[in-house]
Amino acid sequence: MTSRRHLLTGAAAAGLGAAAGAGLVAAAGADNAVPAAAVEPLTTGTATVPFHGPRQAGIAEDPPAHAAFVAFTLPAGTDRRALARMMRLLTDDARRLTQGVPALGDTDATLAPLPSRLTVTFGLGPGLYRAAGLKAPVADLPQFRIDRLERRWSGGDLLLQICADDPLTVAHTQRMLIKDARPFAAVRWVQQGFRRSPGVQAPEHTQRNVMGQLDGTANPRGPEIDPAVWNADGSTTLVVRRVRAEIETWDILSVADKENAVGRRLDSGAPLSGAQEHDEPDFTKLDSSGLPAMPDFSHVTRAHVTDPALKILRRPYNYDGVPNAAGQPDSGLIFASYQKDIARQFVPIQLRLAEKDLLNEWITPIGSAVFAVPPGCDEDGWIGEQVLG
Amino acid sequence: MTSRRHLLTGAAAAGLGAAAGAGLVAAAGADNAVPAAAVEPLTTGTATVPFHGPRQAGIAEDPPAHAAFVAFTLPAGTDRRALARMMRLLTDDARRLTQGVPALGDTDATLAPLPSRLTVTFGLGPGLYRAAGLKAPVADLPQFRIDRLERRWSGGDLLLQICADDPLTVAHTQRMLIKDARPFAAVRWVQQGFRRSPGVQAPEHTQRNVMGQLDGTANPRGPEIDPAVWNADGSTTLVVRRVRAEIETWDILSVADKENAVGRRLDSGAPLSGAQEHDEPDFTKLDSSGLPAMPDFSHVTRAHVTDPALKILRRPYNYDGVPNAAGQPDSGLIFASYQKDIARQFVPIQLRLAEKDLLNEWITPIGSAVFAVPPGCDEDGWIGEQVLG
Repeated sequence: MTSRRHLLTGAAAAGLGAAAGAGLVAAAGADNAVPAAAVEPLTTGTATVPFHGPRQAGIAEDPPAHAAFVAFTLPAGTDRRALARMMRLLTDDARRLTQGVPALGDTDATLAPLPSRLTVTFGLGPGLYRAAGLKAPVADLPQFRIDRLERRWSGGDLLLQICADDPLTVAHTQRMLIKDARPFAAVRWVQQGFRRSPGVQAPEHTQRNVMGQLDGTANPRGPEIDPAVWNADGSTTLVVRRVRAEIETWDILSVADKENAVGRRLDSGAPLSGAQEHDEPDFTKLDSSGLPAMPDFSHVTRAHVTDPALKILRRPYNYDGVPNAAGQPDSGLIFASYQKDIARQFVPIQLRLAEKDLLNEWITPIGSAVFAVPPGCDEDGWIGEQVLG
Repeated sequence: MTSRRHLLTGAAAAGLGAAAGAGLVAAAGADNAVPAAAVEPLTTGTATVPFHGPRQAGIAEDPPAHAAFVAFTLPAGTDRRALARMMRLLTDDARRLTQGVPALGDTDATLAPLPSRLTVTFGLGPGLYRAAGLKAPVADLPQFRIDRLERRWSGGDLLLQICADDPLTVAHTQRMLIKDARPFAAVRWVQQGFRRSPGVQAPEHTQRNVMGQLDGTANPRGPEIDPAVWNADGSTTLVVRRVRAEIETWDILSVADKENAVGRRLDSGAPLSGAQEHDEPDFTKLDSSGLPAMPDFSHVTRAHVTDPALKILRRPYNYDGVPNAAGQPDSGLIFASYQKDIARQFVPIQLRLAEKDLLNEWITPIGSAVFAVPPGCDEDGWIGEQVLG
């Protein structure tokens, strides 16, 4: 058992790392020496995800443990040329930092090594396209019946999704990118979230959220991801919603009531019609009392998508803020989903859920934003070049 | 190299885990079945730190990656018997949760497995002793010249220090303990912090803080810990201070200026009088211009302690909150130190620093609290029994 565990840990950590980084680090680092690390880092810290390619990183890979979603507002009068300068600068920062190399203007270069699978993913909001005088490929979501949106968690002209297996790496990257974005844009909101730490669970296993549910079982996997997520040009779209968990009332439910609301067993994650987590839900199956085993109002029933091309790739993070004086938690989910087409994939699911999902009693969307995610770039390019160049 | 890395990761993760948990889990879990985990956890997740013993856990072990410091205020009229009931209940929760077993009243038992080296350490503030009609072994700190304390980060009658290598485990433990403390006390403040994720650095290597400094080089290690930290009865004391980093002005310093303020090289952590991180600072050494290599005003010079019995055991966590609209970070250090005697060990160091530490220009204490840390307990006991029983 022990040796198998070591094998799993090693394999998981090494998977993305080894080949990716070294060459680029040397290249990008030529004019910006990496400080001598006082430590000999382990594999988790030195693992890198390639930045360059036809698609942006930070989407199809297993999500690292920590994330900061940073949304910006453009000041009035921002034009296309300013946007292009901003995106060139931020792309250069991201290209270096993701490979463990300090940004050109890095004021704390000692924090750049140990990227820990750092990715920086750029999303462009409807307002950015307006500023550039272009038609936006994404539109604000319709108002859903269940929404109680707060401005402080909603909207945004530019989004940076910063993910890494190490929280100090996320903090440093957030700080550097905000500093370089500051001449161009104001911070609108920042949402910081977490998943299980590296090595706590095997990456192929579904993680639990703050409500204790296995979260993400129905996600497209492997070859299912491409048709659901990627346009031919390497672009996609991102929905970010802040969903507050009403923990106080959720916690007083019985296990059976929780399972009926979700449509899955709490322990195994199996649909109520099945025995194993990945059993396909059977909506025709009746339980011993002759009622559908999968209740019509359950979250899984309402969210279910049969056509693989209409699935969404959920990439959520938990949040847990500071409770109030009465001890009531400020916890929930930073829901993030990638899909080719928000109107065709995300909106129908959310409409079905808003209409009749029992889980709505215990979750409240308090923030919402949409972004177009442009293709990736190569060594000489920059993110957003196809839009703003 | 790869195999050595695997070895390090495995050894680090397995070190605290293996022997500790299993027996106790089975015992404590008899009346509270652990839900079948849908995952086969890796070693990092299942690692446990023993709860029982003459000294509390969460002090001398290598600090895990995540922490929540939760301080409570007792309502007027709280008496010794109520306090004893509260401590019995919270001790029982901690004894179970740290071993991966749900608390008796756990409303989300699925989140109890994967303790990830969870520890819960109890501190008793001066107000708790007053409520119990007892003389407190700790007193509020003197006001230091550099302090800009805010009530929302200061004081507290009871402290829970919750540490684990996994942030979801910390969130669940925080939620359960607050829920059970609620009938007895109000939440006064919560400070959540982080260090490097498991596997990112070898535990024996000093970590960097949000300012990029290697932080903790001078900490007592191994056999040095006992005489500095533990009283004969297994008790100790805890100082928690929230220290804001003035990142905006820190970031515009040159590397040389930063190094002079700290007294150490930024990259290696070596004292300015030496070459290696763990070289003892030489305060008599002169630099090439005939001035002391270790400036009189440097942080290391001012904080230096020669007598091992007068050292403090620092166990700090970084914090990184949400920046403001102008993009200015909300970052710093949750300074936590354990020592036998606050007045004899902590206060003199802090007085020397407050008097003349150049680093004061870039750090501001905004919160402060002191706690007596009672001895540990065995299977039949509870934390605080010697005080309140």
